Amino acid sequence: MKRVDKTVKMKKISKGGKFFFLAFDQGLEHGPSDFDEKTIDPEYIIDLSTKMRITGIILQKGLAQKYSENFIKNVPLILKLNGKTSMTKTEPFSPQITSVKEAVEMGADAVGYTVYVGSERENEMFEIVGKIEEEARDYKLPLVIWSYPRGHAIKNPKSFESVAYAARVALELGADIAKIHYTGDKNSFNEVIKAAGRCKVITAGGPLEPLEAFFKDAEDIMNAGASGMAVGRNIWQHDDPIKIADKLATIIFDD
Amino acid sequence: MKRVDKTVKMKKISKGGKFFFLAFDQGLEHGPSDFDEKTIDPEYIIDLSTKMRITGIILQKGLAQKYSENFIKNVPLILKLNGKTSMTKTEPFSPQITSVKEAVEMGADAVGYTVYVGSERENEMFEIVGKIEEEARDYKLPLVIWSYPRGHAIKNPKSFESVAYAARVALELGADIAKIHYTGDKNSFNEVIKAAGRCKVITAGGPLEPLEAFFKDAEDIMNAGASGMAVGRNIWQHDDPIKIADKLATIIFDD
Amino acid sequence: MKRVDKTVKMKKISKGGKFFFLAFDQGLEHGPSDFDEKTIDPEYIIDLSTKMRITGIILQKGLAQKYSENFIKNVPLILKLNGKTSMTKTEPFSPQITSVKEAVEMGADAVGYTVYVGSERENEMFEIVGKIEEEARDYKLPLVIWSYPRGHAIKNPKSFESVAYAARVALELGADIAKIHYTGDKNSFNEVIKAAGRCKVITAGGPLEPLEAFFKDAEDIMNAGASGMAVGRNIWQHDDPIKIADKLATIIFDD
Amino acid sequence: MKRVDKTVKMKKISKGGKFFFLAFDQGLEHGPSDFDEKTIDPEYIIDLSTKMRITGIILQKGLAQKYSENFIKNVPLILKLNGKTSMTKTEPFSPQITSVKEAVEMGADAVGYTVYVGSERENEMFEIVGKIEEEARDYKLPLVIWSYPRGHAIKNPKSFESVAYAARVALELGADIAKIHYTGDKNSFNEVIKAAGRCKVITAGGPLEPLEAFFKDAEDIMNAGASGMAVGRNIWQHDDPIKIADKLATIIFDD
Amino acid sequence: MKRVDKTVKMKKISKGGKFFFLAFDQGLEHGPSDFDEKTIDPEYIIDLSTKMRITGIILQKGLAQKYSENFIKNVPLILKLNGKTSMTKTEPFSPQITSVKEAVEMGADAVGYTVYVGSERENEMFEIVGKIEEEARDYKLPLVIWSYPRGHAIKNPKSFESVAYAARVALELGADIAKIHYTGDKNSFNEVIKAAGRCKVITAGGPLEPLEAFFKDAEDIMNAGASGMAVGRNIWQHDDPIKIADKLATIIFDD
Repeated sequence: MKRVDKTVKMKKISKGGKFFFLAFDQGLEHGPSDFDEKTIDPEYIIDLSTKMRITGIILQKGLAQKYSENFIKNVPLILKLNGKTSMTKTEPFSPQITSVKEAVEMGADAVGYTVYVGSERENEMFEIVGKIEEEARDYKLPLVIWSYPRGHAIKNPKSFESVAYAARVALELGADIAKIHYTGDKNSFNEVIKAAGRCKVITAGGPLEPLEAFFKDAEDIMNAGASGMAVGRNIWQHDDPIKIADKLATIIFDD
Repeated sequence: MKRVDKTVKMKKISKGGKFFFLAFDQGLEHGPSDFDEKTIDPEYIIDLSTKMRITGIILQKGLAQKYSENFIKNVPLILKLNGKTSMTKTEPFSPQITSVKEAVEMGADAVGYTVYVGSERENEMFEIVGKIEEEARDYKLPLVIWSYPRGHAIKNPKSFESVAYAARVALELGADIAKIHYTGDKNSFNEVIKAAGRCKVITAGGPLEPLEAFFKDAEDIMNAGASGMAVGRNIWQHDDPIKIADKLATIIFDD
Repeated sequence: MKRVDKTVKMKKISKGGKFFFLAFDQGLEHGPSDFDEKTIDPEYIIDLSTKMRITGIILQKGLAQKYSENFIKNVPLILKLNGKTSMTKTEPFSPQITSVKEAVEMGADAVGYTVYVGSERENEMFEIVGKIEEEARDYKLPLVIWSYPRGHAIKNPKSFESVAYAARVALELGADIAKIHYTGDKNSFNEVIKAAGRCKVITAGGPLEPLEAFFKDAEDIMNAGASGMAVGRNIWQHDDPIKIADKLATIIFDD
Repeated sequence: MKRVDKTVKMKKISKGGKFFFLAFDQGLEHGPSDFDEKTIDPEYIIDLSTKMRITGIILQKGLAQKYSENFIKNVPLILKLNGKTSMTKTEPFSPQITSVKEAVEMGADAVGYTVYVGSERENEMFEIVGKIEEEARDYKLPLVIWSYPRGHAIKNPKSFESVAYAARVALELGADIAKIHYTGDKNSFNEVIKAAGRCKVITAGGPLEPLEAFFKDAEDIMNAGASGMAVGRNIWQHDDPIKIADKLATIIFDD
Repeated sequence: MKRVDKTVKMKKISKGGKFFFLAFDQGLEHGPSDFDEKTIDPEYIIDLSTKMRITGIILQKGLAQKYSENFIKNVPLILKLNGKTSMTKTEPFSPQITSVKEAVEMGADAVGYTVYVGSERENEMFEIVGKIEEEARDYKLPLVIWSYPRGHAIKNPKSFESVAYAARVALELGADIAKIHYTGDKNSFNEVIKAAGRCKVITAGGPLEPLEAFFKDAEDIMNAGASGMAVGRNIWQHDDPIKIADKLATIIFDD
């Protein structure tokens, strides 16, 4: 039996066991419509990231390569291996566009892959993530699975049933961290976290929310037992991203 | 000619030639709806397994990795190589998510793969299991084929004709153990077992049944000539799983 | 140029240039409905095979492995590399479930693969058999192509036109032996055999026939110039299989 | 930069820069209906080929292997890597059934592959021929691309526009020789040949034509600037194939 | 972390940081209908290219191989790895027909691949370009991504939203140079260029335009901040291509 100890990298992308990731893969997933005059320049957000108390930045290979000098020594890199545009609407699928080996060469401290559970193409994504998990183990690299219920068979992707199933799928597939939707409710989310067992749970971000509601959710999420959050637009679409991130860090790290 | 002797591992996962496996792959196949407050925590069931007179536990890679320390020295591991959720209903197919090599690295004593015979995608599963069988032989690892008639062409998946065909398929594909449905009738199941020839036959579990009926079936199954059973919900959904498992062990091992 | 001489194995699976194979792959292709109380046990037929004057037995990997000790020293093994059940009816296709390398490791003296010419998936089977032929040449192993016209475009799979085309396909694809349908008529079958050129032609079996008609066909087939026959049900579904096989051997070997 | 010089093999399959190939892949593409009592035997045509002033014979792997001794020392071999039957009518596609490596082992002096430009599966054929071209360069083996406009989008496969496009496709894909339809007109065909640039152009054969028309076309084709012809049925379906081939050689080699 | 410095090749295919490529892949993409009596001969355009102040010529493998001696010492080679004809209209897809390794062997200074963002087959192209990007990094070869919004879901492929998204996709996928449509408007195109971040932006060509409009666009494109242009028909469909190219060079290099 081969022992695989991912502790070194798990510590690198966390603080006190908690994860706070800046999500910045929207350029591919949503396109420039998410950006304004400042955020359209990747350098702006990437430079900001070095001033935040985050434990990692989520990037696609292009930004990780072209802006490496701006962040690589200061911010751990969670490299997302899959991506697609939002231009077309077919049954959800996540093509792999970066190999684990390539991620390692870019200095990644963890890799991520999105599984759309319940999609008609779920089986293809399971095959892909199966190989990614195996390769990540060889490199002792944490695996983050974005586990989202989606596809025409999914009526309510954020219901307790859907989210709890998605969390469990991440555990069963070998994820170290499950990035899932928040159910919107502290109690049900606590159950979701139990379903994920020893797989750490962090919440995925979403579109811009009013500040008060956003921080309230963050507190509930962490109180429900989550291990952290991945946030993008709710940070960098604000006027003072550093301040928002700082407040969020206080909630996540509970300091 | 290359001789492949799987005796060492076959002995490890049996007792007196009989197999008693605790099935615990439902977290992926069915989702958390199978669990209650206790069973939602994988550790609860996995720890229980070390106190049962079972000859193996069936797990997906995620649990096998994350809970290895809890069971690996005490309970043989049957690693299931395929998995899917029950969220979508397309023609049945089993994506492979774990390689035989990876299973070996996790300390598996046997590997399992599900074939949905009669599915329109049967041919793809046959190709996959063909390679798994070859690789398992190289590692001298027993192969368990879950052989279930399923798909829109299958009218009655538990009829004698369906089950007997499924059993024979497992033999022809090189399985060491066929995990199949019980026909519900001792006599017909004895014929099913003959159709499987030198491939050992064990029955698959199912949803919770009344205790009396469950044990009656277990006795009939073993009397019909089966080599064992794989049981999940009928054990760990009960209040006293250890007691149920003990009674079942008595039936299976005939002691 | 690399010379590939398959003479050693071709001699092993023939007698006086004639082939007489016992077909026993029905357990996968048709299921247990082909069997009765005796034949349901693979050992019964396999043991019988050692007492027949046959030049080979056709088996799937499962039987070849599990019953190796019963026949491997006495009966040459023609290992069938593909297989499917008859449970579903889609456009015909032959998934490969055993590699040539694995066949060699099992002690095979020849390998077989089924091509459904005229199927919409013909192109996939041609790609597969192309690689099998190449690998079989490397191992100097004869290749038997089951060449059957089938699919919704095929009106009459046993017409002279269909069978002659199928025979030629086997030759063009590099088969050493073409296993094809009998046209039912000595004269037309003689033309079929010419179309196959230096590829040996043997006939495929079929469901149980009255003895007289069966032997009459066998004589016509051999008189038409065939190199042999592969027979299954017409032998082992009879009360006295040894006797039938003996009579057939007399016809095939012309002794 | 790696220099690849295919001169040796290009000279071997030509005479004075002109190509005259005997096409004999019809057994697979059309089936035995192209043959009569004599031509049904591959040996007849292959033996004839050794007596013709041709610069190559086009064969599938099966005939190349089984009849090697009959021609390999006297007639250069153009091995066709793809093939299909005419039994089914789906959107045209060319499965590869022989590898370049295998062709080399059979003593091939050039390899051929068919691209159906305009087919809905054009993209798959382009991927396949891309790899074949790369491998053929490694072996310094000329690549002949059969470039035929075909598929439900193609209204007139022999129009100037279609044929000129097909010729250019062969050049762009890296063919050394484009085997294309004759437009039926010397002037337009001269334009087609220009579109192919430094890729040599030879014409594909077709069904039997009256002798006078056939030779007139041959003269026009060569006068238009073609580098040769590949002819099958118009030679071996005649009573005196040697005589026809001789006359054609005179036209092609202009001697 | 592995550092990949593509500076050497990036300098080779630029002048003062600007790119001026002669596009000559139309023979495959559009067919001979783009050509006249002069341009039908690839040698004519390729020879002209050596007399232009361009920083690279875009070719498919066929022309790069067959006309290598005409340009390889004088003009940098941007090898296009994908191609298709315009004969059929299915959901857009780019089959890869040349490997990066093969491009290197042909002396390529950069490689190109076309991504049709928004196509139903976008995911397949993302997988392909993911591997190309990885391989190109190994060879320190610049990657040009043709990033075109296309497919039945795309209403307006040249709108600001479409083009900006396409530009960002190229950056995120790891392109060094994005070859995109011009929005037709200097101000919006400046925003597009910002969305591409550190990925250089060049414009794709198009059908022949009136000279005045063409040069006006070129000036606007360069003033908007583009890094260059790839032009084909607007150069070589003119009577005096050298003169047009010279004028364009003056605009692009701003000398």
